[in-house]
Amino acid sequence: MPDIAEVETTLTRLQDDICAALEKVDGKARFRIDDWTRAEGGGGSTRVLAEGGVFEQAGVNFSHVHGRALPPSASAARPQLAGRGFRALGVSLVVHPRNPYVPTSHANVRFFVAEHPDEEPIWWFGGGFDLTPYYGFDEDCIHWHGTAKAACDPFGADLYPRFKAWCDEYFFLPHRAEPRGVGGLFFDDHCSGDFGRDLAFIDAVGRGYLDAYLPIVERRRDTPYGPREREFQCLRRGRYVEFNLVYDRGTLFGLQSGGRTESILMSLPPQVAWRYDWHAEPGSAEERLLSHFLKPRDWLAPA
Amino acid sequence: MPDIAEVETTLTRLQDDICAALEKVDGKARFRIDDWTRAEGGGGSTRVLAEGGVFEQAGVNFSHVHGRALPPSASAARPQLAGRGFRALGVSLVVHPRNPYVPTSHANVRFFVAEHPDEEPIWWFGGGFDLTPYYGFDEDCIHWHGTAKAACDPFGADLYPRFKAWCDEYFFLPHRAEPRGVGGLFFDDHCSGDFGRDLAFIDAVGRGYLDAYLPIVERRRDTPYGPREREFQCLRRGRYVEFNLVYDRGTLFGLQSGGRTESILMSLPPQVAWRYDWHAEPGSAEERLLSHFLKPRDWLAPA
Repeated sequence: MPDIAEVETTLTRLQDDICAALEKVDGKARFRIDDWTRAEGGGGSTRVLAEGGVFEQAGVNFSHVHGRALPPSASAARPQLAGRGFRALGVSLVVHPRNPYVPTSHANVRFFVAEHPDEEPIWWFGGGFDLTPYYGFDEDCIHWHGTAKAACDPFGADLYPRFKAWCDEYFFLPHRAEPRGVGGLFFDDHCSGDFGRDLAFIDAVGRGYLDAYLPIVERRRDTPYGPREREFQCLRRGRYVEFNLVYDRGTLFGLQSGGRTESILMSLPPQVAWRYDWHAEPGSAEERLLSHFLKPRDWLAPA
Repeated sequence: MPDIAEVETTLTRLQDDICAALEKVDGKARFRIDDWTRAEGGGGSTRVLAEGGVFEQAGVNFSHVHGRALPPSASAARPQLAGRGFRALGVSLVVHPRNPYVPTSHANVRFFVAEHPDEEPIWWFGGGFDLTPYYGFDEDCIHWHGTAKAACDPFGADLYPRFKAWCDEYFFLPHRAEPRGVGGLFFDDHCSGDFGRDLAFIDAVGRGYLDAYLPIVERRRDTPYGPREREFQCLRRGRYVEFNLVYDRGTLFGLQSGGRTESILMSLPPQVAWRYDWHAEPGSAEERLLSHFLKPRDWLAPA
């Protein structure tokens, strides 16, 4: 039987630790904390750091909600659970750095229980983290994926390859025929049957996110840049908006089911640009993002 | 029987005239013309004026496409036509002015034929125009709606009230509980049985758009503004993006059916901002947009 209180303790501690770590790196701004409740049951804590020294905006959201009817989008593998009473807990975060040489990052860990009056409840975990660079660096991608693999490996050697492939498949914009970024981990419907082990796994994923991201932030945060890089960052952020508003299951479910709009849309970048039919100059660093980095590849393959 | 060539002539002439009128008002930039064809059949002409004197971006698209299976989203009233061979012609435009005192505007006129091997084809028109101010003015709203009514009235006194109400209903963001703007006209499945009359009606709607919009542009284009108004404009443009990417049937159908992405997304504003939980100061002009203008109302009611 899953222990909901233990999930809640693990996730709120994770949120606290991630916020503390991001604040420390930023060195200037602090997280604003908005605790909220839902009329339908449950609530959460939305934490946003805005206009920081390193982070233009970072949002780290915890929520614990329950409802009478699980939406079909909650479980990719078992839509037949739709309509059951449910409980969902999760931490979700998006970090938009100021410097275009620092990639945007996203992480999420979540837990669901679908209830049934006459049967044992069905529970599972989901989550992952993925990286969206503007200017790519092979060493950053290798570090990111290496850390993702290291977080998974103690829980099974099959996890990283499966969840890496799932991430490439999920974070893809069909109308642009482009991946959103260089991937990482994405998983849903994860349940080994051992609750304690699975909870430890998502905690490892959440903490692995910090190990994966912070060294990249430190390495790139002082790279000089000008209006050209800033403009490219804003144009690429447009793709991020397109993905989140057109395809992302969590965003769409949240908006359509009456979730707290500001907590859901804190994932959107603070400044964004679109320009008709814009293309990077052949041979430029901007073009290399598409030709070299935004191609699903095995970043951990021997060179 | 509808005459497709006549629809095409009417719509391409409308596109030409609208582009010429916008260029004249802008006085600085010219429309770039991209003619394109689709592998599946048909094509179009996308025209975009960027970085003008008055218009930060204006896109006017004509397309004429045909396909083997009409999507359900094409007809609100008769989803049973889905799956038939079809032909669709339309002009769609979005104008994003530079000055925040000039509203954003959108117009669309479209024609559909659903074919059937053994029956007469079924055809209908759709369209409308709507206005999205950042700083509202009663006289602009009255002029906009008065011109919309004047365009409709020769074709039936019932049209303006019906299409005005439909517009308020359609351009609404449920997750914000906000209308997109101050409305105008929206209609679908319009077929009186008299093809010539209905074609003349959508031509009147397309030309009525210019009569409705250009005087407002002239009246507001030289209003002084600073960073505060510009920032508010960028934040409100975020709502425009949210509507188009989350709800707009035309945008979503286009993206999901393999339409020309750049032609579809030319509706998105060139510069956009999001800020977590932003609210206008009580009593400010920015708050008045929401409290006074973004409320469905009868703008033509006697004062």
